[in-house]
Amino acid sequence: MNIDAALFDVFGTLTDWRTSVTRELAEIGGRAGLHADWAAVTDAWRRRYRPTLGRVVAGELPWQPLDDLHRLMLDEALTERGLDALTEADRDHLVRAWHRLRPWPDAPEGLERLHRSPVVTATLSNGGVGLLTRLAKRAGLRFDCILSAELARSYKPDQRVYRMAAELLDVEPHRLLMVACHPDDLEAAATAGLRTAYVPRPEWGPDAAPVPPPVNAGLVAADLIDLARILTESSGTGR
Amino acid sequence: MNIDAALFDVFGTLTDWRTSVTRELAEIGGRAGLHADWAAVTDAWRRRYRPTLGRVVAGELPWQPLDDLHRLMLDEALTERGLDALTEADRDHLVRAWHRLRPWPDAPEGLERLHRSPVVTATLSNGGVGLLTRLAKRAGLRFDCILSAELARSYKPDQRVYRMAAELLDVEPHRLLMVACHPDDLEAAATAGLRTAYVPRPEWGPDAAPVPPPVNAGLVAADLIDLARILTESSGTGR
Repeated sequence: MNIDAALFDVFGTLTDWRTSVTRELAEIGGRAGLHADWAAVTDAWRRRYRPTLGRVVAGELPWQPLDDLHRLMLDEALTERGLDALTEADRDHLVRAWHRLRPWPDAPEGLERLHRSPVVTATLSNGGVGLLTRLAKRAGLRFDCILSAELARSYKPDQRVYRMAAELLDVEPHRLLMVACHPDDLEAAATAGLRTAYVPRPEWGPDAAPVPPPVNAGLVAADLIDLARILTESSGTGR
Repeated sequence: MNIDAALFDVFGTLTDWRTSVTRELAEIGGRAGLHADWAAVTDAWRRRYRPTLGRVVAGELPWQPLDDLHRLMLDEALTERGLDALTEADRDHLVRAWHRLRPWPDAPEGLERLHRSPVVTATLSNGGVGLLTRLAKRAGLRFDCILSAELARSYKPDQRVYRMAAELLDVEPHRLLMVACHPDDLEAAATAGLRTAYVPRPEWGPDAAPVPPPVNAGLVAADLIDLARILTESSGTGR
């Protein structure tokens, strides 16, 4: 597999958003004297993610930073779960929980190994540039470059996001590999001419039904260390 | 000095473009059987840099990637020095010499120390995102984020470039530090509300007159290790 750069989805593929956000919700909610199934609140928040971003891609909502959309979705989720008592400050703090996500255990080492190879590594996430930079630094996730859908003023799976990444890195789309645990992200990347790698992750928790791997994924890796092994065994000398 | 992020100029401040480019010119020119004062050719190329980028900022030339402008300036410099014999392939290779610049000896260690501090580190260069990503990976220059004037579709010292960096990192301008060996870069950053740090570099070679430090630089550091010492002794806990 001759590729020059690998692009990584972040929420789900590299980080365990459900455990991280649930922990912060439980802490903030506990301090406010509230009781709830906090994992269910996290799920209610995250379930709004794709439909809301989809409205931006479709032009029904104006483009705005992910932090602002996260706030909108959080307000709705809290109302749905009867948690309107949380203050403005609580909500602002919770929106920034997405800047503090914890990595899956294999992600730091896998990215470090790829950094030492000729393959360029970059994020390609719906998180903003500032969010991704802080998240990566805090979580010990090493990238050669931070790329965000923000730079195309859109959101994945909009084709423009993948094409922007190829253009900014100055790499042909077929020499780029999109790595994600989300079939729709990989399908959109493939449509834009990128190669694809699927990494399964239990992002919705241990009780959720496993996602079947996408039929057309170029490769499937067990985790980031496995992906690094596959790519460094097969990569060329880069550019 | 309470800052959240430090932004680094690259050509001159972190890398020794003159030695790096002269070496590649001498190699390519030698293979073509040409004789010249190759350092003088490098200087003739680089002297066209500010005026050419200035024409883009002023709107006299349409915005285009730095590689394309480097090619334009190289063609002019080669004609000026009677070196028209260099081929298209030679010229394309030489334009990419700017992707392969060598760092000043203190730069990798200084950036590594800053990476381990709460201060976010990023490039803020006129080089493109792809150029900077490859240069940093090859030279062992560690950044938390790659930012380029390309993302504002302009060039420093246009104010829009500094404001774009503050916006993308989601950091107030007065919590950002611009680090450069070029007084005009620092003056423009200060006008945009950023703090400034001057690092003197012998970028035009040992025989060039030293640049007097800018009168209003917020701080002056001897090199990147000195800068890391100053910032890590005085930085807060970040965000």
